[in-house]
Parts: sequence; C-alpha cells; structure tokens
Amino acid sequence: MNQTIKKIGVMTSGGDSPGMNAALRSVVRTCAFHGVECLGIYRGYQGLIEGDFKEMTARSVNNIINKGGTILKSARSQEFRTVEGRKKAFEKVNASGMDALVVIGGDGSFTGGMVFNEEFNFPVMGIPGTIDNDIYGTSSTLGFDTALNTVVECIDKIRDTASSHNRLFFVEVMGRDVGHIALNAGVGAGAEEILIPEEDMGKDRLVESLKRSRESGKSSSIVVVAEGDKTGDNVFELKDYVEKNMPEYEVRVSVLGHMQRGGSPSCWDRVLASRMGVKAVESLLEGKTNYMVGINNNKIELCPLDKAVKGKTEIDQELLRVSDIMTV
Amino acid sequence: MNQTIKKIGVMTSGGDSPGMNAALRSVVRTCAFHGVECLGIYRGYQGLIEGDFKEMTARSVNNIINKGGTILKSARSQEFRTVEGRKKAFEKVNASGMDALVVIGGDGSFTGGMVFNEEFNFPVMGIPGTIDNDIYGTSSTLGFDTALNTVVECIDKIRDTASSHNRLFFVEVMGRDVGHIALNAGVGAGAEEILIPEEDMGKDRLVESLKRSRESGKSSSIVVVAEGDKTGDNVFELKDYVEKNMPEYEVRVSVLGHMQRGGSPSCWDRVLASRMGVKAVESLLEGKTNYMVGINNNKIELCPLDKAVKGKTEIDQELLRVSDIMTV
Amino acid sequence: MNQTIKKIGVMTSGGDSPGMNAALRSVVRTCAFHGVECLGIYRGYQGLIEGDFKEMTARSVNNIINKGGTILKSARSQEFRTVEGRKKAFEKVNASGMDALVVIGGDGSFTGGMVFNEEFNFPVMGIPGTIDNDIYGTSSTLGFDTALNTVVECIDKIRDTASSHNRLFFVEVMGRDVGHIALNAGVGAGAEEILIPEEDMGKDRLVESLKRSRESGKSSSIVVVAEGDKTGDNVFELKDYVEKNMPEYEVRVSVLGHMQRGGSPSCWDRVLASRMGVKAVESLLEGKTNYMVGINNNKIELCPLDKAVKGKTEIDQELLRVSDIMTV
Amino acid sequence: MNQTIKKIGVMTSGGDSPGMNAALRSVVRTCAFHGVECLGIYRGYQGLIEGDFKEMTARSVNNIINKGGTILKSARSQEFRTVEGRKKAFEKVNASGMDALVVIGGDGSFTGGMVFNEEFNFPVMGIPGTIDNDIYGTSSTLGFDTALNTVVECIDKIRDTASSHNRLFFVEVMGRDVGHIALNAGVGAGAEEILIPEEDMGKDRLVESLKRSRESGKSSSIVVVAEGDKTGDNVFELKDYVEKNMPEYEVRVSVLGHMQRGGSPSCWDRVLASRMGVKAVESLLEGKTNYMVGINNNKIELCPLDKAVKGKTEIDQELLRVSDIMTV
Repeated sequence: MNQTIKKIGVMTSGGDSPGMNAALRSVVRTCAFHGVECLGIYRGYQGLIEGDFKEMTARSVNNIINKGGTILKSARSQEFRTVEGRKKAFEKVNASGMDALVVIGGDGSFTGGMVFNEEFNFPVMGIPGTIDNDIYGTSSTLGFDTALNTVVECIDKIRDTASSHNRLFFVEVMGRDVGHIALNAGVGAGAEEILIPEEDMGKDRLVESLKRSRESGKSSSIVVVAEGDKTGDNVFELKDYVEKNMPEYEVRVSVLGHMQRGGSPSCWDRVLASRMGVKAVESLLEGKTNYMVGINNNKIELCPLDKAVKGKTEIDQELLRVSDIMTV
Repeated sequence: MNQTIKKIGVMTSGGDSPGMNAALRSVVRTCAFHGVECLGIYRGYQGLIEGDFKEMTARSVNNIINKGGTILKSARSQEFRTVEGRKKAFEKVNASGMDALVVIGGDGSFTGGMVFNEEFNFPVMGIPGTIDNDIYGTSSTLGFDTALNTVVECIDKIRDTASSHNRLFFVEVMGRDVGHIALNAGVGAGAEEILIPEEDMGKDRLVESLKRSRESGKSSSIVVVAEGDKTGDNVFELKDYVEKNMPEYEVRVSVLGHMQRGGSPSCWDRVLASRMGVKAVESLLEGKTNYMVGINNNKIELCPLDKAVKGKTEIDQELLRVSDIMTV
Repeated sequence: MNQTIKKIGVMTSGGDSPGMNAALRSVVRTCAFHGVECLGIYRGYQGLIEGDFKEMTARSVNNIINKGGTILKSARSQEFRTVEGRKKAFEKVNASGMDALVVIGGDGSFTGGMVFNEEFNFPVMGIPGTIDNDIYGTSSTLGFDTALNTVVECIDKIRDTASSHNRLFFVEVMGRDVGHIALNAGVGAGAEEILIPEEDMGKDRLVESLKRSRESGKSSSIVVVAEGDKTGDNVFELKDYVEKNMPEYEVRVSVLGHMQRGGSPSCWDRVLASRMGVKAVESLLEGKTNYMVGINNNKIELCPLDKAVKGKTEIDQELLRVSDIMTV
Repeated sequence: MNQTIKKIGVMTSGGDSPGMNAALRSVVRTCAFHGVECLGIYRGYQGLIEGDFKEMTARSVNNIINKGGTILKSARSQEFRTVEGRKKAFEKVNASGMDALVVIGGDGSFTGGMVFNEEFNFPVMGIPGTIDNDIYGTSSTLGFDTALNTVVECIDKIRDTASSHNRLFFVEVMGRDVGHIALNAGVGAGAEEILIPEEDMGKDRLVESLKRSRESGKSSSIVVVAEGDKTGDNVFELKDYVEKNMPEYEVRVSVLGHMQRGGSPSCWDRVLASRMGVKAVESLLEGKTNYMVGINNNKIELCPLDKAVKGKTEIDQELLRVSDIMTV
C-alpha cells in the first residue's frame, strides 16, 4: 500500500440514499484498518469549502450501518461550481492535512470530484450512492435495492385497497430521467402497466391495454409511472384521461415521493456499501485516482470517473418483455 | 342463545380498512361455533341487492387474519339509497334464508343498516371498520392502529432524508373531517407541527412557530397535515406560503394517500376484530339489534347504531398539549 | 407548579423495551418546557451509584423517538440492593443537585425507587417500561404493543412455511410469569392453541385439541407457548410429546427470544411514552412522589408505587374465550 | 417455439422459500402467453404420484406475487425415490396430457427431476428455489435475498437490546452446509464475528477476537453462526464456552429458525422469479430439457441440471476479508 496517503476525507453529496451511512462506516473502518486517518466532511462540497470536518475513528461509526440518510448530511453547493469556491476548498483541504477524497454520491457529485482532481491534482475516488441506479459502470448503485423494496411494500398496501374496490391506481415513483425503479418495482409489484421515460406507449395504447386487462378478468389495476415518463403531462393528467375513457373505473393517484429515499438499507445495500468502501480506500492507498467503485458480475471493480459520468445506463429489454408477459 | 336466528349474513362496506378480514373471520367462526350458518355478502349493499352471497364455513376464512383489504370486497351503492333498491335487497335476503346482518364499515354503512332495520324490521349489528377513528361509541375503530403505524413508518423514512438535507416536509395524512390520525401519528413521528380540521392555527402562527423551531436548533422539520385541515387551501398552497416566508428552507410535500388504508393489520387490530366479531354474532343470537359493537375501557360493549352515527368524536385535548410540549 | 424541584434525573432500568427512548425524550422535553434541568442517568441504579450522569437538553433527545433500546443503557445493580450502595447513590444525587427521579422500568426497578424514596425521602416517579404488560395500575406498559406486533410478524412468516408443509409449530414467546404476550399475539396470529402460565390445559388435552383441529380440516397449526407455561417441562419436551402422539405431523419449535425486546416502537408506544413522560414530570413538579404513571380507560393516571409493585395483573378471560371460539 | 409441447406441469418441491409463488405465477402466465396449458402439481413429487393436479390460468395466480410459502404446497416423497413410485407418477403424467415439467426447488428436487427425465425421457426444467443460495450455476437462488433481509431485521432488533445491556449475542441462522446466509447477513448486520461451516476459526481464536473487540471499545457484540458451523458442538455450547472465558459478558443465544423461510419476497426475489419463470417455459418450448434456469452477471441463463446438482458453491473470499476489516 502507498504510504504517501495518510489522511483520507469522506463526504456524502447530492440526494441521499439508503446505504450511504454503511458506505461511510466502511470507508472509516478501512482507514482505521490500514492505520490511515479519516476526516468526515459535513454537507458535501459546501462543507469542504467551509472546512466543516470531523475526525472519524472506527468507533464513531458504530450503529449506523442500518440507518437511512447520512450522518454527514448532504447539500448542494453553488459555491463549489466556481473557481473561487474550489480554491477555498483546496485551502481547507490542505490545512487539514487531507490527502485524498472519497465522494459518496451521484453523477453531479462525481463531476465535482473530477474537476477538483483536475485543478489540484488531488486524488479522488467515487462511490455511487443514489436510488436511481442511473450510473454507468456499476450494475447497482447504493440505495437502489432498498428503494425497490420500499416501493413494492407501498404498492402491496395500495393493492389491498385497490382490489377491495375494483379501482385503478396510478402510482408515481422516482426516476426523472430513467425508469429503472419503475420497471423493477413495477414487475415486483405485479403492475399491469409500467410507464418509463425510455419508452412512450402513448395514452391511447395505454387505454387499450387497460381495457384488455379489464376484459381478461382483472377487476383492479396498478399502473406504475416513473416521474419522468412522458406518456401524459403528468400523472394527474393521465388519471383524467383514463377516467374520461374508462368511466367504469374509479381512478386514483398515489405519488410515493421522498419516502423512497429513506429507510433502513436492505442487506444487499449494506453489504454492497461495505465492499465498496473497502475498495475505495484501498484503491487510493494503491495510488489510484479519478475512479468510481462499481459492482459488475458480482465483482467490485473500478470505472474511470469520466466514463461513469458520461455513460448512460440502459433499460433492461429482457425485463420489459418479462413485464409484458406477466400482464397476460 | 336465541334459536330463531339460524343464518347470519356479513358484509364489508364503505372504505376498506385493515382488520376487516379479521373481523369477517371472527363473525364466520363465531357462527360456526354456535352452529349458525353464515353467508358472505360481496361488495357491500350492492351485493345485498344482487344476491351476491356465498356460504362461509370456518375453513373459508383460513389465513385471512393477516391480510389487508377485504376478501368480500367493498363498494358504494347508489341503488341501496332508494326504496326500490332496499326492497330488492330484502327479497334476496329472504330468498337466502338470512335472518340477521352484520355490517363491517363506517357511519355511512351503519346508516344504511339502520334504514334497512327500520323498513323491514331486520336484525342488524355494526362493527366499526374505518381508519379514521371517527365513530362515536368506540375508542378505537378497526384499522386506526394499523394506519397510525403505516404513517409513522413512512414519516420515519421521510425524516431520514429531511434531516440529511435540512429540509421542511409537509406530510398530508388521511382525515377529511377529523384529525385523529394526524394528531396521533404526528406525536408518534415527532412532528414539529400538526395541523387538524378541529383547530385552525392560521398560516402566520405556523410560520412563527416554524421559525422558533429553527432558532431552537432544529435543522429539519416535519409538519403533519390532516387532509381536511383548513390552515391553507391545501398542502401545496401551504408549502408555497412557507417557502415564500422562510426562504432559508427547502420545503417539500408528501401526500401519503391510499397506502394508509392497506397493509397487514397490527396485532391490536386483529385482536380487536376477533373480539368484536364474537360480540356481534352473540348479540344477534341474544336477540339484540340495531347496535354497533365498540370498545371502551378495554371492554367490548354495544352502542345504539343511531348514537354511533350521530355522535361526534372529539380530539384529545391532553394529547394536543403533549404535542405542544414535545416540540419545545 | 412546585418551584422547589429544579433538577430531575431520569433513568431506564431492568430489561429494555421499545418506547423507553420515547419516554426519555418526553421527560427531557417536559423538563425543558417547564424550565427545569434534566440529568440523564446511565445504566440504571448502577449509574446512580457511580454518578454516571449527563445533562440533557431538548436537543439531546432529537431523533430517538423511533429507536428501540435505550440510549441511557440499562443494567442490573447488586450494589443498589445494599444500604451502602444506596447511600453512595444518594451522595452522588446530592452532589449533582438532582432533586427528583423518574425511573422507567418494571416492578423490580420500582421497588428500588420506593426503597430509595423511603430511606432518603427523595421524590420518585415511575414509568412502566416492559414488554410483559405485567404491571398493576396500567392497562398497557411501554413496549407491550410493539412486542405483540413483532411476534405476530414472526408468526406470519412461520405460518407461510408451516402451511406449505403441513407442519405443526410450537412458538415460544416471552412471559415468564404472565401470558399476556402469548394470549394477545396468539389470537392476533390465529394460533390454534395458546399455552400460558395462568392455565394448565395438560398435555393430553393439548393433543386431543390438536387432533380435533386436524380432523376439522386444518393442515398446519401454530401453538403459541409463553416462556413460563407449565404444560410441558419446556417447549422442546412438548414437541417430543406431540410428535410421539401425532406421528402424522412434522413438529418444529421456534423460540423467538430477545428480538421481542427490540425494534422501533409502534405508534401506540410512542404516543403512550410521550404522554407518560409529561405526566411523570408534571406530577413531580406538583409535589407528588412515589407514584407510577399508568393509562386506564385511555386516561393518564397515577397509581401508588407500592400498589403497582404488589398488585397482580389478570389474564383477560373474555379474550381466552374469544381464542377458543376462533379455533373452531 | 416448439409446438409439440402443449401442456406444462409445475411444482414446488423441498423446503419452501420466498419467491416460489412469484415463480409459479410467472410459469403459469408465460404458459398462458404462449397458449400452452398449465397444470399445477400439489405437494411436489408426492402429488405427481397421486395425480394431485389442478389446471392453472393466468387468473388463478392473481395476488400471489407477494406471498411467502407456496400455494401448491411442498412435501418430501419417499415413494418417488422408488422405481414404482416414479412409474406411478409417469402414468398420472401421461393420463393428464402433461408433456413437460417445471420443478421449483433445491438440489434434491432437481435430482428427482433428472432421474424422471432419464427414465421416461420426459422434458424437465429446474428453477432454483431455496434460501441457502447453495446451487451451482446461479449467483442467486429464489429466497436468498429475502432471507438475508429477514435476518438483518431480526439482528437489528437484537442489537437494540444487546447494546442497551452490554451483552454478547450468538445468533444462529440457517445454512447446514454453507455459510452464505451467515456471511452476507453477518456483514449486513455489522456482526463482530461470523462463524461458517467453510471455516473453523476455533473456540480459542473466537474468544481472543471477542476480547480484542471488547478492548477496542465495543460494549456489545453480535456473533452470527451458521447452523452447520463446527466451531462448537452447537451454539449453546459456544455460549457456555465464551461465558466461562469472558465472565465480564452476559451471553445470550437466539436461534432464528424457520421464520427465515417465510415472509413476503423482496423486490429482487419477485423480479428474479418472474424472469426465471419466463425462461423456464420458453426453454421447454424451444425443445430444451434437463436444465436449470440461473442468473449470472445479471443475465438469465441455462445450466445443465447435473452440473447444478453436483457443483459446489464457494464462499466469497473477498467478502470474508471485508467482514474482517469491518470489525476493526
């Protein structure tokens, strides 16, 4: 291991996701394991600018592996988008003796890290923490699995009342640009239709499909809609359209909202976070920089940060087909 | 026990609530225990009109005590509001040999039962099934306890993300006319403010209070708002108002919606349902009619249906005070 | 309010239960509300002896209402059972300026409080925290409701596998002396038999009953057994006996164990804890001492500590009867 | 698609696991999608022998995707181990018109399928359903992910009480021959030590490690032990040994038991089951036989049944190392 790195900083940045605390714990403990100091940076890049740091020992991350949110808090920083802001940050970093940085966050946070690396030749390592699973270079981001379980548990409850009343529910889930949550949770919840940004089935085909579904003997229906879907203007407009065209149905809308970001992480997310934290720290100690830690084929691997940021994830075509077959 | 009653019908009616299946199971098994036949009536009063009945044995309610929703389904019936509709229902009832009726539902459903009793001198017994806890004559309705747990679990998740980001959340919960869910779940979730239909604190006092709360060192806040609260036009208007007056806060809204009606019932709701079902059937067998089964002081008691329907529940002033103290 | 009390100590003592943290939060915040100082005492009476105190402000109990366990930790203290131990404790108490004590715990902890009160004329107030619900003077202890939900969720899972395999399960739940958990969770989980310390049905009647149950068409069965039940020597001996006498059944045992004490408290337990904490502090401020705060008929009331300690709770005969009817 | 296959039978066999119902639903609906008839076979191979079949339509699997256990039930069949038993089964199969078989189960169930295929040249396809994740040819078996979540939720509760009392808990989890559940759930739950059949650390090293852990400042500890671990004779003997050698600790044992097999499947298990069911049916329709459907690198693939049965899974060495680092 590279002895030039003696103090590693770690932050959580961007939207929070379940598993961030578990990843933080892993980073801190891997530092302790290798005899490297660790500084927790509060409120992401804003805290980097303000020097809002705290020394972390193996014991300061006791009992957080199962906690949602992030004990380091997160924030968006306009100031870090400026050269001046980043200079201030670098001064604070220097003053603290920090000589490498682990960023737990999404692609916006990684972009910040890349710029910081470029400008100051400062070692940076990313860990993908976002419920959206929209980061290239990893088959799974921290929080995605937990969010899926949260969504299917909510829809299970909604289905209880939907099937007691022969109702149709539109359930909006997170995913502004990508439909991974909608597609996976939709299949997992047994949704009749799944509307995602990557595909536009059109309102007429939606109504046709719902009518067929009704004729096939289904008395209630759940349609899962990703936030960023473009089939309707929004989920409420969709509701109105369907109600007009299928007066036999009572239609309801449920927007699951921010609860999808919270909650105790699933076992998968806790284990993934633990593995990623080890890899992030050890890669820095080996002298690597400007990578994101990812998981592919159940192996923990590095992916260059710029690829992670620029690459696009693709919707799983096989799963789309499975979804169609399941609603026969 | 009165031997003139030989066949009891049971329905679930109105909005569904967790515990309805457990109550149905109890009614069916108590009938079996006393050697009385039992008919399940599908889709509430509409099924009564259509003669949509099914014989229920002790085994036909296996494995439903833990299921949300209602296997008998529920519906609203315009037809039953007419004399002709009720006549049709009475004919179906007569043809089936049914000689008493248990209605699991809310006050609208009880009113239907009272009219049916009045017009045809038909024995009717009510079991209060609604998450709103707004029925006079019982300290607890079926589903209320489960709904409270659902709400606090959701808010626990929202709080993870709220406190990671120093945000203010407005969380809308069910309760069009009453604030029981909001008040109890608000205290249980540690909400900073609780807005209920029974009290109007006014938007200005709300903002004042949130500012004090912020100054006292709280970096994030949850405000629980009952559906029927009148402080703002609606929860989105409240959000806009607070955002305008407290620009230092990011404000978000979460409308919990119909998931509050679903889910596996809590142990309390299952036990309560079991107790109420026994009392309902045995009271009919004792020749009683036109009552609702309630729980008061942990005793299962009868309350005349008309009192249950007309009476008002009151918000718990002591709990309001507790809520104020907790947000010190 | 009595101005002579200026600093209140609060401890959790004995076996922990969900809701203890919520009660602690309420005590601390009620003190803050009334401008009274509050000292947290770590590790129960042992911490009292050692002067292991920490000043608590309204903010030091942020985000604990939903946490199981107790942040003050709990312990049993042999030393406090001695006069010397209690003298040491009183010295520490005096040195700290503490002039009243809130004890959150079970009857053993209350006895300690009573003795301390007697010997030093020191104001003491109890809050009943135990999952067993075996305290006289309150219809509900903190943690009982949560434990019931934990148990029924576990048994729901066991039932999945029991009914997939036509198996008989003995599920042992907590309750060394009382059967409240077993009876309530047994009814809530739809158990075929419930064995409690208060009743001894005998092994032969148990087998007879299980045979009848099997003949009635049930292919799987759950028997809930309280820890302290005397029907068999223990749950494993019961299993052997039933297996010998009903070779047609595969019999399995599950001992739920300590997970029953943990977990995030239910909404009921959080609200109850909040109410009890307010009452405990305000009663001390009103000059009262040597009471336990209880809930009866949904009213928060005081019960003399000696009655709470000496009185016995009784098993609910109506619920026993409901249990019998449900297994028809 | 191969038109020679017109009727597919499906069974669940061996120990049940969460996701079996979701896989059944997928098999049934994929048959419906392709216009192939589907027969549900009750109680595994025993039902095959007895001709205990039921026609399944797309609607007969409504609302089961989220249910634990298996609606087809499972059983072990001694009779199917005999040539006569299998002949009887083949006669029933012929009489029913079934011309291919999907077996959802573990390696014992697959062996049965292979023999049946060999003797009667009957097309067979396997879907790996077991919580143990011990099947070669798939990185994930149905139910493994759900079981991990169940275990970490239980240990989270146990940790509440462990850390309130400074106790050491041994938690036994399933895994007679393999440690996958113990290792993954142990890391996920933040266990201090994880004891698995694949490694024997010895009792003395265990005690040494626990002492170091205590000295490092941890006041409570969780040790996760796989059923089949050989460090002690059993978990109770381990407890005694540690108690003797570390009298400063109160040690407790919790055996999680059969609840690990039950519960509503996680989103991952539901999606995996849906994907596997499609692949199983479509592979049969393409004329393939004697394969198991597996998932590798997030692709659904086939693995020859004999490889699946004979191959061994290996414990993840990287994860073992992560586990060591986390307990620094």
